[in-house]
Amino acid sequence: MKGLVIGAGQLGAMMGEVAWRLGIELWRYCPDTHRYFFGTEMDARGDTGPVDFDWVTAERELLPQTPFHGVLLNLATYQLVSDRLPQKKLYDQLGLPTAPWGELKTGESADALLAKLGTRLVVKARQGGYDGKGQWRVSEPGFVSEADCIGEAMIPFSREVSIVGVRGADGRKLFYPVVENVHQDGILVETLAPAPEAGKWQAEAERILGTLMDHLQYVGVMAVELFDCGDKLLINEMAPRVHNSGHWSQDGANVCQFELHLRAVAGLPLPEKLSWVPTRMDNLIGVALDYQWLAGNGKVHWYNKEPRPGRKVGHINTLL
Amino acid sequence: MKGLVIGAGQLGAMMGEVAWRLGIELWRYCPDTHRYFFGTEMDARGDTGPVDFDWVTAERELLPQTPFHGVLLNLATYQLVSDRLPQKKLYDQLGLPTAPWGELKTGESADALLAKLGTRLVVKARQGGYDGKGQWRVSEPGFVSEADCIGEAMIPFSREVSIVGVRGADGRKLFYPVVENVHQDGILVETLAPAPEAGKWQAEAERILGTLMDHLQYVGVMAVELFDCGDKLLINEMAPRVHNSGHWSQDGANVCQFELHLRAVAGLPLPEKLSWVPTRMDNLIGVALDYQWLAGNGKVHWYNKEPRPGRKVGHINTLL
Ligand SMILES: Nc1ncnc2c1ncn2[C@@H]1O[C@H](COP(=O)(O)OP(=O)(O)OP(=O)(O)O)[C@@H](O)[C@H]1O
Ligand SMILES: Nc1ncnc2c1ncn2[C@@H]1O[C@H](COP(=O)(O)OP(=O)(O)OP(=O)(O)O)[C@@H](O)[C@H]1O
Ligand SMILES: [Mg+2]
Ligand SMILES: [Mg+2]
Ligand SMILES: [Mg+2]
Ligand SMILES: [Mg+2]
Repeated sequence: MKGLVIGAGQLGAMMGEVAWRLGIELWRYCPDTHRYFFGTEMDARGDTGPVDFDWVTAERELLPQTPFHGVLLNLATYQLVSDRLPQKKLYDQLGLPTAPWGELKTGESADALLAKLGTRLVVKARQGGYDGKGQWRVSEPGFVSEADCIGEAMIPFSREVSIVGVRGADGRKLFYPVVENVHQDGILVETLAPAPEAGKWQAEAERILGTLMDHLQYVGVMAVELFDCGDKLLINEMAPRVHNSGHWSQDGANVCQFELHLRAVAGLPLPEKLSWVPTRMDNLIGVALDYQWLAGNGKVHWYNKEPRPGRKVGHINTLL
Repeated sequence: MKGLVIGAGQLGAMMGEVAWRLGIELWRYCPDTHRYFFGTEMDARGDTGPVDFDWVTAERELLPQTPFHGVLLNLATYQLVSDRLPQKKLYDQLGLPTAPWGELKTGESADALLAKLGTRLVVKARQGGYDGKGQWRVSEPGFVSEADCIGEAMIPFSREVSIVGVRGADGRKLFYPVVENVHQDGILVETLAPAPEAGKWQAEAERILGTLMDHLQYVGVMAVELFDCGDKLLINEMAPRVHNSGHWSQDGANVCQFELHLRAVAGLPLPEKLSWVPTRMDNLIGVALDYQWLAGNGKVHWYNKEPRPGRKVGHINTLL
């Protein structure tokens, strides 16, 4: 079986790690440079690849046009989610709880939205943001948007959590436990799986993610980031792909998210059930490879990328 | 870092699976066909490879001469263990318990040995046997050996167990729990980790394996297969390499045997401790890839080899 992942980053490479032992020949395609990569390799094989893929998926939702769009699974979901405006509208349409929000066009003042939503706003570019990039905190009148954005009420959450799950082509869904995520400067630095008191929110988080996957008829792994407000969960954003807060599953679960995604998009059976052991994931951000990390008890996952400040270059999973 | 494994089978390929996320460029070399393989690939890249390997290890102990013998780690151990005669002598020399045995040269009658050791013998070719090949059961006088062999007393064991451990260059050792192994027709079919009542034999098994590794100044992963006789353990054989009865560790332990071996031979830190959850490994023998295996809860490891009767083509690890 031959599959393709659009995108040439670590998420696809980690699918490549799993592919071999499932008998899947996995290629990756960079839609920006038009180069093909094989398996986990970070050096391109060239600018031609096989043409007879059995299926095509992606590791990110914002994609330029590619030669594979005609057969790309979940394309409509990518197009919807890659723009925060229709994404937020979807939550409202489905009656799912999310941080209160409004639209903010290029050149528009945030004053009215600030007055309406509270004392602090988080303004986010509609497209292209990740790791907290493309965001502005607004607490004073006078802010004028320099991009097409949405503005959200700043939520005084008690913590951030997320849920990762999978939906098969037959509509069957499986979920990992709710996990707790710690961010620094907008970047995920640590995930605790399960989150302390995960049980409190498991059903509600599954309801939210399950509703989204079913409505979109999505096939594969999806994640939802949530603000835990003590008495309620609010959706922050969704990611129609494997997600950093699911990386712990490589070492802490019977089947990891990368394998689940491959199995779903390839039309292979999903497992009967997911099981797991308590695991902590620590991101490696902007640092050089240091083999002293191995002296602990964690499992080091190095992405073979050049370290740059703020760049995710690996993670360590530790069974607790 | 660049490393080489001599041998082009699944054991090296599974080291290749681990190598990427440790930032190790792992090549494999087939000493029979003189071809080089990369990572997990089962198709050769060609008959030339890099020359600047930081270290060279092997996935099997019986090796023809190679261009890498001068730098091959643990060479003396491979030479000793690949011949059952010095291997058995070593156990006696170190006072380690093993099945009673004697030498049996080509053309020699087994009658004297049979009379000395009991009513049944297991005759084993000194070199090249695996999966029960190169063995003869002898219970009647008149057997004449057709190869250079050893003959062992047939042991009425209550079960077969094994232990896998690692020794670093600094002499530090770590051990997995004693596991129980079920064989059919001389081939391992199932491993249960830990073995039921593993605690009863853990210290003794660690003493045996530890004594061997220390004496040989071995660096890397080593396994010892043992007969559990109820009141004592007897060594069946040792394997100076990653071992089929350690495959469960890929999914049931904090660090798997393939990673431990790479770390030891590469001079990288070993973990502080090993931890695990109960896991069963089932070998896939001589069967075609069947994705219905995925419908269970196990993790499928397919070796991407052509199925042939009696050939190990994969395994499934199930957390219990
Ligand atoms: N409405 C909000 N109220 C409070 N904090 C917020 C809000 N929106 C975002 N944040 C904080 O900023 C972080 C990044 O925001 P968000 O997840 O929307 O950005 P991103 O760049 O898409 O991140 P990712 O890398 O997860 O895709 C959040 O994890 C949270 O800590
Ligand atoms: N002395 C013995 N008494 C009883 N059974 C034995 C004896 N020696 C071997 N056996 C049986 O035969 C099996 C294979 O023997 P052994 O492990 O020596 O062979 P091998 O071909 O080297 O196997 P491997 O594939 O593990 O390398 C053992 O696991 C055990 O079941
Ligand atoms: Mg985002
Ligand atoms: Mg986010
Ligand atoms: Mg053997
Ligand atoms: Mg054996």
